[in-house]
Amino acid sequence: MSLYAIVLAGGSGTRLWPLSRGEMPKQFLAVCGSSDTLLQQTIKRLLKLTSHERLRVVASGRWKPLIAHQLSCIGMKGNFLIDEPDARNTAPAIALGVAGLIDGGACEDDVVLVCPSDHIIADEGEFSRAVGIAEKATAGGSIVTFGIKPTSPDTGFGYIKAAGSGDEWLDVDSFVEKPDEQTARGYLESGNYYWNGGIFCFRVRDIIAAFRDYFPECAHIFDAPPEDRARCFMSSPSESMDYAVMEKARNIVCVPLDAGWSDVGSWDAVYENSPSGENGNATVGNVELYGGASSLVIGHERLICGIDLDSMIVVDTPDALFVAPRGSSQKLRGIVKQLSERHHDETVEAPESARPWGTYRVLSKGDRHKIKRIAVSPGGRLSLQYHMHRSEHWVVVQGTAKVVIYGHGDESKPKERLIHEGESVFVPKGHLHRLENPGRIHLEIIEVQIGEYVGEDDIARVEDDYSRAD
Amino acid sequence: MSLYAIVLAGGSGTRLWPLSRGEMPKQFLAVCGSSDTLLQQTIKRLLKLTSHERLRVVASGRWKPLIAHQLSCIGMKGNFLIDEPDARNTAPAIALGVAGLIDGGACEDDVVLVCPSDHIIADEGEFSRAVGIAEKATAGGSIVTFGIKPTSPDTGFGYIKAAGSGDEWLDVDSFVEKPDEQTARGYLESGNYYWNGGIFCFRVRDIIAAFRDYFPECAHIFDAPPEDRARCFMSSPSESMDYAVMEKARNIVCVPLDAGWSDVGSWDAVYENSPSGENGNATVGNVELYGGASSLVIGHERLICGIDLDSMIVVDTPDALFVAPRGSSQKLRGIVKQLSERHHDETVEAPESARPWGTYRVLSKGDRHKIKRIAVSPGGRLSLQYHMHRSEHWVVVQGTAKVVIYGHGDESKPKERLIHEGESVFVPKGHLHRLENPGRIHLEIIEVQIGEYVGEDDIARVEDDYSRAD
Repeated sequence: MSLYAIVLAGGSGTRLWPLSRGEMPKQFLAVCGSSDTLLQQTIKRLLKLTSHERLRVVASGRWKPLIAHQLSCIGMKGNFLIDEPDARNTAPAIALGVAGLIDGGACEDDVVLVCPSDHIIADEGEFSRAVGIAEKATAGGSIVTFGIKPTSPDTGFGYIKAAGSGDEWLDVDSFVEKPDEQTARGYLESGNYYWNGGIFCFRVRDIIAAFRDYFPECAHIFDAPPEDRARCFMSSPSESMDYAVMEKARNIVCVPLDAGWSDVGSWDAVYENSPSGENGNATVGNVELYGGASSLVIGHERLICGIDLDSMIVVDTPDALFVAPRGSSQKLRGIVKQLSERHHDETVEAPESARPWGTYRVLSKGDRHKIKRIAVSPGGRLSLQYHMHRSEHWVVVQGTAKVVIYGHGDESKPKERLIHEGESVFVPKGHLHRLENPGRIHLEIIEVQIGEYVGEDDIARVEDDYSRAD
Repeated sequence: MSLYAIVLAGGSGTRLWPLSRGEMPKQFLAVCGSSDTLLQQTIKRLLKLTSHERLRVVASGRWKPLIAHQLSCIGMKGNFLIDEPDARNTAPAIALGVAGLIDGGACEDDVVLVCPSDHIIADEGEFSRAVGIAEKATAGGSIVTFGIKPTSPDTGFGYIKAAGSGDEWLDVDSFVEKPDEQTARGYLESGNYYWNGGIFCFRVRDIIAAFRDYFPECAHIFDAPPEDRARCFMSSPSESMDYAVMEKARNIVCVPLDAGWSDVGSWDAVYENSPSGENGNATVGNVELYGGASSLVIGHERLICGIDLDSMIVVDTPDALFVAPRGSSQKLRGIVKQLSERHHDETVEAPESARPWGTYRVLSKGDRHKIKRIAVSPGGRLSLQYHMHRSEHWVVVQGTAKVVIYGHGDESKPKERLIHEGESVFVPKGHLHRLENPGRIHLEIIEVQIGEYVGEDDIARVEDDYSRAD
């Protein structure tokens, strides 16, 4: 019997806008003083309990480049990613993960730990201890949900009501909806209510049985061969693990977790979980504060100067700035929705976009020109493409680029050249071309696009993006 | 007898940082809802009272490119600029201006109006009326100072105490220092105290006489030939017009001015003088506010989203951001001083720098590369120069560039080429080169610098910058 782990990284969300975007969900951000992203923190945390081979990340294929990039940064390679064909909430995603683990050699008696990818846990020792208890509980056939010891009457979480108080794990009386403030206060005082953090632990045999009993519409995922699983997944109803299984099964127990957990669900939560310095101010980047206290100021390269900022939140990014008093950040979610309805692309597009071959960032936009910094990973290759309305100048700032440019209207004779650091190449409008990094180090180029139209959608791909790292 | 005008544009200052910088003083900024800069507003205001030929701008030569650029934008050309060799406060600057006007044909009986370049006056009709009264007063040999009708017990201004109350102009009892709050309240109630706005009006003969009587150390400027004036100016003590002349002369009168005047001396003043929209918020740029009231939010291209901002000030620029509650902006002056002592170049350098040939703006900086957008005015020409540590790629985004590049170590055979829109050229490290705009429209190029060092000081100029517009 050994421990396997599933990380759910499918979530989207803009509650930490402008750092989080439609194209850059929370789990891919580094916040609260860590240089690791929430996903990286989650993986590192789990690798203390199990091994690379026993870990799977379930997420939409659209995040594959980002996940591959972030996990390669912490030394993780290989096929750990399980493609979530569509958003179906947590239950079908977990079934997909378990099926994937079985492909990878997990047996009926092996234990699986399921974790969201966008939470922080300050006390990893306590977390490991709790997981140990959960493993024990699963040995008796129990399905474990971790109950987060509440630290405030939070109305943003569902609660787990424990029955009585075992010394290690507790029976579950019921799962209760997000309460109002007053009810939440009662829960906090009573002492036997816990936040539902969406962390689960079970044996393979028990979760399969539970799915067959309580969520059969999804259980056929376990019987399907890998190539047929996506279809089964798509035919499954969208349901959360709590509704589909936990609230119905009888073999549910709760393992209390008091380990500095947070879902980092708002800028207020980020402030509360960030290391604060003088006057309780938490700052990131090039920030100078004079007077004021208890503020969160997150910047990057630009100088930020704040005077007498009391309990304020300032989040600065290359293309968008957010300012609000603490306590108002809860309203952000709805407001970002309004911003996107008003076609503010900054709610969706991230200043830096990830692609299978690397990343790019727009440095400057004009009516007739656009400037990008493009980073191509070693082995990365962009699609064979051409543009109707723009020519492109590429200047290599670092590394070596392999550039193929076809003659106009003559796809037969491509010119292939190696462009070295400090050199440049011109790609005329309408010419089929391809950019590749044949080297061992990252390739960084500055692209100057010029033409009557420089929108991202002026691209005709003859082949798809491709990357050896991919 | 006709009206001449002197505009004092020598002032520096960073009270409106980060919009104002060491290299971009207040008078060159457009604030309070106008698309004209304070200097442009001042000139336009005066051109309703006098003509181009009768107007002079006194300022340090370092501002010549900026002033020439801003004034050409409002259709003013020619030699209206009088070079202030050094900062000597207002009295020597005014003497220099008057001497310049005499060169330009002003006679002893002509009347001169002296205005700072960084104030706003909302009611131009009222201002013109007051100037008319001042001209009448000067006919009797009086030297006029305009007394701004105070609207608040401001402790930031000196006050003029009027003696009695003439119907058009008033005798001056005394000039009083910046008062404390309580004294200022008394002044406001008494009704015969006025803010000293530094606006003067006098006949040429009378001001020369006054300088000879009360500030002789400076009066020899009037006797010196143009080529010797700079030396006289440098030998004059530094003194304000008030100390040097106004507080001593007996023929001083005060013309009350109640015309929506402001020296725009702080962000609070900018807010008070800006058109405000919903909930009393004043915004500039791409700003979305939800909730909150009475705030000033100044942005540019980047999206700014504010929630529940009450009486806050947010000023965003490409390289620096300022956030503070209204009322705290007074502290900015001292704090910017501290920032510059900590070597934050953003206090001195402006995101966009003006040169005799045009402007440039840094789009992106790295250890080994820097990207600039360079705009060269028609006829503008950069110095013949070379760089030790960097090569340069120029991509023409708009217009046509004339580029001269010399062979390495071979100054004899320069290659001259015309680079058109969409084309590019490479300037190798160490090669002598020159960039020029021979065309009729603005030339815009993207410069990508690459090298082991990309600091502004890696430039060896063989000839100075030069511009036909200059």
